[in-house]
Amino acid sequence: MSQPLRVGMVGYAFMGAAHSQAWRTVNHVYDLPVPVRMQVVAGRSAAAVAAAADRLGWAGHTDDWRTLLTRGDVDLIDICAPGDAHAEIAIAALAAGKHVLCEKPLANSVAEAREMVAAASAAHDSGVRAMCGFNYRRVPAVALMRRMVTEGRLGTIRHVRASYLQDWLVDPSYPLVWRLRREVAGSGALGDLGAHIIDLTQFVTDLSISAVCALTETFVKSRPLPSSPPGTGEVTVDDAVLFLARLGDGVVASYEATRFATGRKNGLRVEINGSLGALVFDFERMNELSFHSTEAPADEQGFTRVLVTEPTHPYMSAWWPPGHLIGYEHTFTHQAYDLVQAIAAGSDPAPSFADALQVQLVLDAVSRSAETSSWITVERSSAEPSG
Amino acid sequence: MSQPLRVGMVGYAFMGAAHSQAWRTVNHVYDLPVPVRMQVVAGRSAAAVAAAADRLGWAGHTDDWRTLLTRGDVDLIDICAPGDAHAEIAIAALAAGKHVLCEKPLANSVAEAREMVAAASAAHDSGVRAMCGFNYRRVPAVALMRRMVTEGRLGTIRHVRASYLQDWLVDPSYPLVWRLRREVAGSGALGDLGAHIIDLTQFVTDLSISAVCALTETFVKSRPLPSSPPGTGEVTVDDAVLFLARLGDGVVASYEATRFATGRKNGLRVEINGSLGALVFDFERMNELSFHSTEAPADEQGFTRVLVTEPTHPYMSAWWPPGHLIGYEHTFTHQAYDLVQAIAAGSDPAPSFADALQVQLVLDAVSRSAETSSWITVERSSAEPSG
Amino acid sequence: MSQPLRVGMVGYAFMGAAHSQAWRTVNHVYDLPVPVRMQVVAGRSAAAVAAAADRLGWAGHTDDWRTLLTRGDVDLIDICAPGDAHAEIAIAALAAGKHVLCEKPLANSVAEAREMVAAASAAHDSGVRAMCGFNYRRVPAVALMRRMVTEGRLGTIRHVRASYLQDWLVDPSYPLVWRLRREVAGSGALGDLGAHIIDLTQFVTDLSISAVCALTETFVKSRPLPSSPPGTGEVTVDDAVLFLARLGDGVVASYEATRFATGRKNGLRVEINGSLGALVFDFERMNELSFHSTEAPADEQGFTRVLVTEPTHPYMSAWWPPGHLIGYEHTFTHQAYDLVQAIAAGSDPAPSFADALQVQLVLDAVSRSAETSSWITVERSSAEPSG
Amino acid sequence: MSQPLRVGMVGYAFMGAAHSQAWRTVNHVYDLPVPVRMQVVAGRSAAAVAAAADRLGWAGHTDDWRTLLTRGDVDLIDICAPGDAHAEIAIAALAAGKHVLCEKPLANSVAEAREMVAAASAAHDSGVRAMCGFNYRRVPAVALMRRMVTEGRLGTIRHVRASYLQDWLVDPSYPLVWRLRREVAGSGALGDLGAHIIDLTQFVTDLSISAVCALTETFVKSRPLPSSPPGTGEVTVDDAVLFLARLGDGVVASYEATRFATGRKNGLRVEINGSLGALVFDFERMNELSFHSTEAPADEQGFTRVLVTEPTHPYMSAWWPPGHLIGYEHTFTHQAYDLVQAIAAGSDPAPSFADALQVQLVLDAVSRSAETSSWITVERSSAEPSG
Repeated sequence: MSQPLRVGMVGYAFMGAAHSQAWRTVNHVYDLPVPVRMQVVAGRSAAAVAAAADRLGWAGHTDDWRTLLTRGDVDLIDICAPGDAHAEIAIAALAAGKHVLCEKPLANSVAEAREMVAAASAAHDSGVRAMCGFNYRRVPAVALMRRMVTEGRLGTIRHVRASYLQDWLVDPSYPLVWRLRREVAGSGALGDLGAHIIDLTQFVTDLSISAVCALTETFVKSRPLPSSPPGTGEVTVDDAVLFLARLGDGVVASYEATRFATGRKNGLRVEINGSLGALVFDFERMNELSFHSTEAPADEQGFTRVLVTEPTHPYMSAWWPPGHLIGYEHTFTHQAYDLVQAIAAGSDPAPSFADALQVQLVLDAVSRSAETSSWITVERSSAEPSG
Repeated sequence: MSQPLRVGMVGYAFMGAAHSQAWRTVNHVYDLPVPVRMQVVAGRSAAAVAAAADRLGWAGHTDDWRTLLTRGDVDLIDICAPGDAHAEIAIAALAAGKHVLCEKPLANSVAEAREMVAAASAAHDSGVRAMCGFNYRRVPAVALMRRMVTEGRLGTIRHVRASYLQDWLVDPSYPLVWRLRREVAGSGALGDLGAHIIDLTQFVTDLSISAVCALTETFVKSRPLPSSPPGTGEVTVDDAVLFLARLGDGVVASYEATRFATGRKNGLRVEINGSLGALVFDFERMNELSFHSTEAPADEQGFTRVLVTEPTHPYMSAWWPPGHLIGYEHTFTHQAYDLVQAIAAGSDPAPSFADALQVQLVLDAVSRSAETSSWITVERSSAEPSG
Repeated sequence: MSQPLRVGMVGYAFMGAAHSQAWRTVNHVYDLPVPVRMQVVAGRSAAAVAAAADRLGWAGHTDDWRTLLTRGDVDLIDICAPGDAHAEIAIAALAAGKHVLCEKPLANSVAEAREMVAAASAAHDSGVRAMCGFNYRRVPAVALMRRMVTEGRLGTIRHVRASYLQDWLVDPSYPLVWRLRREVAGSGALGDLGAHIIDLTQFVTDLSISAVCALTETFVKSRPLPSSPPGTGEVTVDDAVLFLARLGDGVVASYEATRFATGRKNGLRVEINGSLGALVFDFERMNELSFHSTEAPADEQGFTRVLVTEPTHPYMSAWWPPGHLIGYEHTFTHQAYDLVQAIAAGSDPAPSFADALQVQLVLDAVSRSAETSSWITVERSSAEPSG
Repeated sequence: MSQPLRVGMVGYAFMGAAHSQAWRTVNHVYDLPVPVRMQVVAGRSAAAVAAAADRLGWAGHTDDWRTLLTRGDVDLIDICAPGDAHAEIAIAALAAGKHVLCEKPLANSVAEAREMVAAASAAHDSGVRAMCGFNYRRVPAVALMRRMVTEGRLGTIRHVRASYLQDWLVDPSYPLVWRLRREVAGSGALGDLGAHIIDLTQFVTDLSISAVCALTETFVKSRPLPSSPPGTGEVTVDDAVLFLARLGDGVVASYEATRFATGRKNGLRVEINGSLGALVFDFERMNELSFHSTEAPADEQGFTRVLVTEPTHPYMSAWWPPGHLIGYEHTFTHQAYDLVQAIAAGSDPAPSFADALQVQLVLDAVSRSAETSSWITVERSSAEPSG
């Protein structure tokens, strides 16, 4: 058996828990070229990180992520820390010759993202790999969408309709957590939810967003402070963002991300219409994909609800018999599987940092569009998106 | 233009209103070989039938249905009276040389139904036509089901699953209307709802039910009397009936009809599984038909929701553009259209009285099965079912 | 019984057939204050209009709509002619003292619409009524939406999401019909489909669209000519239009209308999220309304699929028992019912011409926004929308 | 920290893989009273079990399950072997003082099941626990169903409608695997699928099936042998089973289990109607539960699609935020959690062996009913079902 791939993870909150579940599982479900070892987890509080290591299954722990850079028993650094820490950790890790998996969005600014791309590029020649964690690409139904589009099942694409709807901020007494403060979170629904549907639609269609026109809104403008002393503070990020866009050559699109869509819990929904057919995905029914084909017998056409649980569907041969569903966490296991395979094969994992920079450029254009109430052309990163 | 077909209708309650809507409409929507004229409506109360004639659009009215038998200006008698009146009216009408459309179930007993079949047979030679009104055959999605089964899209049929679920008796304070008294209604959910799914599944599959094993239940055994003096009376019909059945050669089936399925308003649902595919219909979404085909590309299989509103779908060329739905009443217009066409062409409309007798034989077998808690073989009427 | 209301209809194509079905039916289903008489239909070709009169059930016919203006036996003129004829006919009819029902969109330009509003206003004092035919307001589920919003079931509205998706132009060999030529049709998907969702969302929320930012696209830029000689011609209208909008005070919205949404036949879909709940409507399931309430028990919350077929639901007491669906044409019967009631009562039917002008102002703003790639503020007509 | 609970598992095929995923995960997701250790896996082939131990994460392995009985480092024996081995292993394990988790169905005959119940009873006094693995009880939506029924949300139960539909035998060239031979598998769809819906409906309603009337069918009577030499063999189990049943006092029910329901992959579906409401569950959408309540406002009633992903829903506080789905394997993690808790607390885990015997008694009655074409009363085990 080859040398194991030893992982050091930074951060252990929601994303850290999801990544840990993936690292614990991937060895036992997929036939990996190298085994994965959960070596160490890093966090700021020594006591808390020790408890997290125990609960999440990491062999060791540290309260200083920098120690990971010099440890010889860490091959890959998995960044689950908040967005404002991404650039510093990723650039240092790549410089130290560690592979990097960085959660999305890649950075809090285009400038940071550019530096990260440069760092990844510099490290690439010495065999170091970098990948950004847009996990929704690894929903089997989403991967199947991409495959079907690539195979031409939709013909020429005309329409993209994407929304990511949640409702956890509808209650005005919900406190002013860090995600609602621009200086920490960068943006609100835009970076948190919008980034996912931007990446996902570009991934599925293999087209890039070229221009956007956006509006944002903050419905509840001040909220109770989460900690004492009592009081209220200003919400400085968007509660909701909507934008029109053009992709590729002649595709029209609409996007919406919000935390105020009452009744929608994790409503990531994408519909694509082409000249030969259409595909619809809704994460709240993540094991399903709806497909309409104009090539079916005329009287039998309609949307087909494909249960994406067959062994021939992407990622599914590792799991259960048909009709036995998988869940949210599996997308991270699939991500780990793809990354480990790429590292072992010396190939380039996707989405690359350059792909993630392209998403960042769209986020930036959306922000500027909303501020100026005008259409903004999206700058292209020099690198072409990879699939 | 040919001579008009002049209709006399007996009864003007729920069914009479639905039939009237059909007679008013069919001339204006379909290109009929002969025009239809709404000549006269008959009922027991002179005042009430006069008001009904006015409201429903009949040229004349009478409080004695027998007068229709001798009127030279009535060609067709449409029987919408309660079931215990069917046999007498139909037999007299046929003897008088009038075409007959009789609402379902054909009769309240097998004996009556046999007499009606004999009367229809006797009148047939002189060009008189008889038809039973199982309107659900004329839902476009149901007609499409039959067409697809006939075309072999399902292969060999293995399973039939049929239920007709309503909930209007759930409230125990609902009064003891005539439909809950055996001496008037014959049976409860069985004849009212069960008859429909028996006919519909036999129609769609072109197979006959050969044996049944049933249970019935009356959940609320006494109810308030509907009229003064106050008091309660015994419910003497079934609130619910369930039965297993065998159809044709090796098909297994289950049936259920109930007025106690909370939340189901008119839930007539049929699923058929064959060796090559499956079809699912639910009346609460009557403009849709779900189809699964094992012949579709493997990774794209699933249930396709066909919106049965294309001009090439049965009956639909007369109506609106695709995606513009039709409703319950349209099934009666389609029925009127088919009947008028058959009369004009001198062909045999379906379902014939013999088809309806076959349903009656199943109803009878179900009743006896429930009484005896045993399997009962369904007698075959001599006539073969017609499509 | 009061004097009948005698109708003269102009035009007898798709809309004329739908209106005729309504006029034929409304007397027999609703208890009207005055009976309706289908007096005369007008069209350009004498032979064709005579055949239409016969098929659709009109007592008379004429090849000159102007004769309706002077006939004493016509009380109401129902305009189903193409949009470029609306203004001339409506203004003349109102001046002649005839009530007017005018199909949507009210006109092909804001200027025309203003003249029509002025004409309606002038005629109003002498008891003449004018109404625009946005029939989707009369879908029971849509009327229920409005009622629930008015009752406060959604709390403060935050999001409106509206789309009207069809796919009949996906095939590039579909010919260049008049609807695809700007000089006749005014616009493409915008006026045909967009007008409906603009009116519907303003109706349901009782809010007006104040600003828009739009894009339009023509995917297939030339098409075969529909008649000889063979050849192709340029499509001069929009195949699709998307726009962002703001309504009232702080509501954000997105709209889309297209004829290229493969698989969508008549997909008029509206979702509204408020602080206390959400409502979702989809015309392809027009008998259903989905409602989410944050006031339900916490563990039992979700979208409730209400089957809008109860007698207490708007317009439904006239129809069939619960669970027995109605169809597209019923919206016109409801419209006729409301209009006849208003005329008889001397009250103002809705939507008024002023309401329809407000829709026209939005259409105009959308067009200018798409041309200039900028946000456009929607002008307010002086009149307030009526419900 | 308390002593760990050390598990030895027998069998490592489909069920063994699912149980292993649960044992690997439960420590890291739930806050357990004692940690779980995956000590040893047993199988018949030394090489194969060694590979399985490595892949599934077991510390040790053995080719003789009997060695587990005497090992001091094994506290719990988890039986994932085929049904004909259950009784021998379970009885030996209990006699050796090991806790036992035994996959369903408990045994291949009532006689075996009775012996197992006796063994469990004998061991109980010395603190040894026994549980049968009906994992579908641990679907959060199913647990919520039971909670809602218990809380009275349905009122008096009237109808139970249960089916478990798969389609993997539709292709007649599918080979004659051991599951299709009675001498090994005991029965076909009945024991494999029917057992689940029998247990699930009894669990949710807290009622027992008292009488059944069944039919079974084998559609494809011979199949290719799975191994050389080529040839065909007879299928000796049921492809499909349907039965009517009575539960408790006056509840009527229908059950169906089949491997020939084209298009249904793992369609375990249950609908329950009571006097106050209804619940519907479909495993193919396992994160959802549909609830109808007659106590909701009249015009807003309908089936509510509850997304069972809130932290207050059963088992869900350990997982992801609302709207982030879980999958099939989670039911085993929940089962492990409940079992470990019961063992640590010294309480009785459910379903007990007595509960599982009750299911076996129903299976037996169903078999005899199908053979005799008659109603069969279900014998009651002396023990009352536990929840």
